[in-house]
Amino acid sequence: MTHGKAPTATRSTLVISAHAGDFVWRAGGAIALAASRGEKVTIVCLSYGERGESAAAWREGKSLEEIKRIRRGEAEQAATALGADIRFLDAGDYPLLATPELTDQLVHHYRDTRPDVVLTHPLADPYNGDHPAAARMALDARVLAQAIGYPAPGDVLGAPPVFFFEPHQPEMCDFTPQVLLDITDVFATKRTAMECLPAQTHLWDYYTGLAGRRGVQLARNAGPNLGLPRTVYAEAYMRPYPQVTGELA
Amino acid sequence: MTHGKAPTATRSTLVISAHAGDFVWRAGGAIALAASRGEKVTIVCLSYGERGESAAAWREGKSLEEIKRIRRGEAEQAATALGADIRFLDAGDYPLLATPELTDQLVHHYRDTRPDVVLTHPLADPYNGDHPAAARMALDARVLAQAIGYPAPGDVLGAPPVFFFEPHQPEMCDFTPQVLLDITDVFATKRTAMECLPAQTHLWDYYTGLAGRRGVQLARNAGPNLGLPRTVYAEAYMRPYPQVTGELA
Amino acid sequence: MTHGKAPTATRSTLVISAHAGDFVWRAGGAIALAASRGEKVTIVCLSYGERGESAAAWREGKSLEEIKRIRRGEAEQAATALGADIRFLDAGDYPLLATPELTDQLVHHYRDTRPDVVLTHPLADPYNGDHPAAARMALDARVLAQAIGYPAPGDVLGAPPVFFFEPHQPEMCDFTPQVLLDITDVFATKRTAMECLPAQTHLWDYYTGLAGRRGVQLARNAGPNLGLPRTVYAEAYMRPYPQVTGELA
Amino acid sequence: MTHGKAPTATRSTLVISAHAGDFVWRAGGAIALAASRGEKVTIVCLSYGERGESAAAWREGKSLEEIKRIRRGEAEQAATALGADIRFLDAGDYPLLATPELTDQLVHHYRDTRPDVVLTHPLADPYNGDHPAAARMALDARVLAQAIGYPAPGDVLGAPPVFFFEPHQPEMCDFTPQVLLDITDVFATKRTAMECLPAQTHLWDYYTGLAGRRGVQLARNAGPNLGLPRTVYAEAYMRPYPQVTGELA
Amino acid sequence: MTHGKAPTATRSTLVISAHAGDFVWRAGGAIALAASRGEKVTIVCLSYGERGESAAAWREGKSLEEIKRIRRGEAEQAATALGADIRFLDAGDYPLLATPELTDQLVHHYRDTRPDVVLTHPLADPYNGDHPAAARMALDARVLAQAIGYPAPGDVLGAPPVFFFEPHQPEMCDFTPQVLLDITDVFATKRTAMECLPAQTHLWDYYTGLAGRRGVQLARNAGPNLGLPRTVYAEAYMRPYPQVTGELA
Amino acid sequence: MTHGKAPTATRSTLVISAHAGDFVWRAGGAIALAASRGEKVTIVCLSYGERGESAAAWREGKSLEEIKRIRRGEAEQAATALGADIRFLDAGDYPLLATPELTDQLVHHYRDTRPDVVLTHPLADPYNGDHPAAARMALDARVLAQAIGYPAPGDVLGAPPVFFFEPHQPEMCDFTPQVLLDITDVFATKRTAMECLPAQTHLWDYYTGLAGRRGVQLARNAGPNLGLPRTVYAEAYMRPYPQVTGELA
Repeated sequence: MTHGKAPTATRSTLVISAHAGDFVWRAGGAIALAASRGEKVTIVCLSYGERGESAAAWREGKSLEEIKRIRRGEAEQAATALGADIRFLDAGDYPLLATPELTDQLVHHYRDTRPDVVLTHPLADPYNGDHPAAARMALDARVLAQAIGYPAPGDVLGAPPVFFFEPHQPEMCDFTPQVLLDITDVFATKRTAMECLPAQTHLWDYYTGLAGRRGVQLARNAGPNLGLPRTVYAEAYMRPYPQVTGELA
Repeated sequence: MTHGKAPTATRSTLVISAHAGDFVWRAGGAIALAASRGEKVTIVCLSYGERGESAAAWREGKSLEEIKRIRRGEAEQAATALGADIRFLDAGDYPLLATPELTDQLVHHYRDTRPDVVLTHPLADPYNGDHPAAARMALDARVLAQAIGYPAPGDVLGAPPVFFFEPHQPEMCDFTPQVLLDITDVFATKRTAMECLPAQTHLWDYYTGLAGRRGVQLARNAGPNLGLPRTVYAEAYMRPYPQVTGELA
Repeated sequence: MTHGKAPTATRSTLVISAHAGDFVWRAGGAIALAASRGEKVTIVCLSYGERGESAAAWREGKSLEEIKRIRRGEAEQAATALGADIRFLDAGDYPLLATPELTDQLVHHYRDTRPDVVLTHPLADPYNGDHPAAARMALDARVLAQAIGYPAPGDVLGAPPVFFFEPHQPEMCDFTPQVLLDITDVFATKRTAMECLPAQTHLWDYYTGLAGRRGVQLARNAGPNLGLPRTVYAEAYMRPYPQVTGELA
Repeated sequence: MTHGKAPTATRSTLVISAHAGDFVWRAGGAIALAASRGEKVTIVCLSYGERGESAAAWREGKSLEEIKRIRRGEAEQAATALGADIRFLDAGDYPLLATPELTDQLVHHYRDTRPDVVLTHPLADPYNGDHPAAARMALDARVLAQAIGYPAPGDVLGAPPVFFFEPHQPEMCDFTPQVLLDITDVFATKRTAMECLPAQTHLWDYYTGLAGRRGVQLARNAGPNLGLPRTVYAEAYMRPYPQVTGELA
Repeated sequence: MTHGKAPTATRSTLVISAHAGDFVWRAGGAIALAASRGEKVTIVCLSYGERGESAAAWREGKSLEEIKRIRRGEAEQAATALGADIRFLDAGDYPLLATPELTDQLVHHYRDTRPDVVLTHPLADPYNGDHPAAARMALDARVLAQAIGYPAPGDVLGAPPVFFFEPHQPEMCDFTPQVLLDITDVFATKRTAMECLPAQTHLWDYYTGLAGRRGVQLARNAGPNLGLPRTVYAEAYMRPYPQVTGELA
Repeated sequence: MTHGKAPTATRSTLVISAHAGDFVWRAGGAIALAASRGEKVTIVCLSYGERGESAAAWREGKSLEEIKRIRRGEAEQAATALGADIRFLDAGDYPLLATPELTDQLVHHYRDTRPDVVLTHPLADPYNGDHPAAARMALDARVLAQAIGYPAPGDVLGAPPVFFFEPHQPEMCDFTPQVLLDITDVFATKRTAMECLPAQTHLWDYYTGLAGRRGVQLARNAGPNLGLPRTVYAEAYMRPYPQVTGELA
């Protein structure tokens, strides 16, 4: 039995991100890889990160609206570079509050995009409460979208696998890499997307270095016949649900 | 970059089993599946389970040597049915002791079979200390076999992925299914192999039922476009090391 | 000192269930057992499971009100079969929201039924957020009901033991069986109650099988002098609070 | 179905203690309680605690043999006070090494005493490696004693429940009280037994205080109709295996 | 590089307490110690504990307002004895609800007191849901107070270390002592503060005893050259964030 | 009461390292820092890492003895650069076996060096079994060295704090940074020591980068008044035992 994935051209990935920017640093490689295979990727940003992740802009005296506008523009550019669509829910940050209304909006996006794969934050982060709030709603909405009785348009969802992307301080967030994704072939694209976010230039190199370190671990964990190039770039993920497969590998 | 698996015909799977029999109930599907793809599978039985898993034979008054001979014969038949080679180390059971000498023997088997995939028991089992002892040695030997300085013949090993198979009481053994393997296509073969073990006929139905329940979970966790048949059979596994992949799915 | 349980005839059990139906599959044996000893059992259903657990009815095009009415009727029948009273709070499902108002309603039911034993869901379930929400409120209300200063009618509560019943996928819900309850003597009654829920006929056999498997574990964990019958049926539970006893056994 | 415990007069409890003394401080109440019901209790001391728990004697310049003799005498007195038999394996302490030979000796004691209940140390203690070593062997031997194929005299064992007694620093040893045993009725006996150990007089009051504090928790966790006296004494235990019961309470 | 603590005279400690009273029993030593060094300590009481922790007063028939007034007066006296300021938010208890509005109030207190050290409850307590609610808000507000974009007066905060104080039943609350604070020099002051709370006289001795037991552990864990007095008193704390230091000790 | 540390000049640190080299990469900063304060630091290398960590030398066809000699020389040079003494136990690696004899040797080194601080590996490492074996023996020996009855020369030890240094893949080894040590002032010395190990030049930059990343985390977790320089270097540690302190900070 073929483990019946959708044909590449029609596969859909949904990325749920607390703030504009998160999806670039943490899942840019996975997004670019899916897009490079001709798949559809949709990013939903719950907020712009306008209060909690825009310190420089606040110090320059910019207004709230101005900051939101700037961050939205940058995120759109980065999404375009990666080959993905992007939607903004403007739900506010610091704190991003988990509400039934916002969860319901996410259900609609699930029913609309019909994802084969979902990417979001992990459920713990002692340095940033918005990330777990986003993850909580992303998981709840995925379950609700599967129920025929849930009052939202569109067909009920299957049960797409979920991947948590790597937080900034993994050891403090109960994050153990369970999946190492080889992003070598699209790393240049990820770097381009990172460079769309000029306020955090120090992160360009930080996440380039992290991708290299995760690449070294990928090589260390790879099977004996893997013909890897000199430099490998990787992203780390966790799975809250079991992997379904037709072959152990 | 292709995630460089060996060509199917030359792939090798190593199964390290505390007792003769364990590999049938817990990994028979994975073994049959690999064999059905033309891959090589080698089963190493550390003991025959002659003391701890042969209660009926003891009650019938059979001798130790007789029990070992019977269990060896049954295990050979089951391995043949699954399409695998089998080796017996006759290290004794109840208790199976983790020793440097036995670990060294396993290193030789690693270097000899050069596995692309390793299957063994999980590291905890409050009902049977032999299973964790086998797992501990299987993991230690895998690391030693990777070192060029380790004094054993053969080339150094890569880092093949390891899968823990499901223990009899998963909730008591910290076993959370991380991988659900679809074994529907080879389930009849697994059943045939189980029927080579006549002393435990009640387990034939038990493990048929378990495969069906894991199959239901597989379907529940599968992506939306999965065209599954009416009845799905599955086996559950855990990964002690991260999965290496070129695609999130 | 006798470990001063109430006389059997006046003992009271409170079951707090997210959806109509949960109490049958997961705690039907415990309920029937208490009722068979002449004790009082009260089931509080927070919702009917009208959206999340009634897929067949939705596919048949039934209306929300119709579905709620049907599920209420079935749950009443099942409760009667088990020998228990049942109350419905109609708080909505998918999602069932944990609110101060609903928790307050539960406090009133605690003060009113004065339970010696409380049964509810465990605190984690990645496949169904309503179950943890129900459990969270059940535990919070139990603590509030113990405070003389809490504004609800009735005397303050003691500290009745709580038992979490087994979720559908125990390994995914951090559920480790801590108590195996022998329900052999009332299993026929549980089966009758299950058959009051015609929409989920496949679950009749699933939960019969589970009771048998838990029964095998009960026998495996039972003391040496236990004179058990051929077939034993059991239900598994966890305790969030320590057991209080006058004898280790 | 009665949950078939042996008639009280023939019930047997086996206590496996790393050092002479441990069983008094940590399980003296449970031992006295069983003895007071006419049950048989056997204590197996793996060592005398001659090196690690006899600092005062060493400071007084006593010899190793003298210390062992003194501690043996005190332990015998305490066992007598509690109403229990005691056996000494003299396996050495600091470190007490877990060996196949010592485990085998324990199998013989299991087969000989045929316990309905087993008490021992928990599996972790960062302050004293002898305690986990004793626990490890106690658990392994219990499993071996259940196998008909294990070469030791006597009938195979059932699966008696195991209780871990409370270590000196519970929070550092992953010890969560799962069972609170009411020892009020025999507390005077436990105090008498403690006073048989004159080298550690400060522990007499320490463990009296601990029994009082666990008693307060017992009352806090007890059901509403429990008619408890003013002062309650209790001991805390953990269960590595599920409780088997015919009634939730 | 000096690990740049503020000069003692200007250091500030913020204590966030669910109920009036909590800060005395659990952190009175730390508060008195900081005050004795000339540092500023501010206690924020989210509620008076008027419903959940005032059973005696309710039994005497006092009114809600009267109870709140009494508890406020006692807490003020205790704070004065310890040398600290105290503020009351009167947010209600049993349940204390974690709300965005209350979290926002705490942000204002953070910005206002500019703490170098924060003390609060741990995140789990199965016996009292108000404690985790207070802790959750204390941690969330600390993160918000660090963001320049958060709309509250005052400069942004640094990242002061947080210490969880010891709950009443540490083993049930995942509380492992990570820090043992020597409070011997100020223990008389803590005792005086405890005696300002006449409704719970049994706790005076309980917490004196606990301080002595934690003192014994402090001595047991202290380095070899520690010149400790005969009786040592200590309080235990946990750190949710890493310690920052210039020297391992 | 002063928290009675030994005068700086007489303080002693003991570092227990599985292989020559480990102490440089993982604790070089802590060692250099202690030495720079005039304290004594002793490194005990259980093996040279001759089999498991010398792949390049084996590939060049060097003999076992040659490799051991080279690694010993490099480790001596690195220890000298850091200002520490070094001792070699030559117990063999890959596998390094935890034996009573080797643990006994460590007791002698504890009694001899009388450490105020102990540094070693953490207790888990799925990629290298030698590291946990070293840690296990280091902890066991520390406890044995505290017992007056243990037959080894020298006075009994106090209870020096233990710090686990950071493993190569912290997320896979249950390693959560609990202490971030500022090593900025001695980082040049650590770099010099690293450069004494020419076989692993790629690690020079890896551990420079890690020190920088841990430095960023140190700054992020530091209190508000910390006057940190532009670039901070840090090492991360875990504590298996509680910190003993006279001040929360």
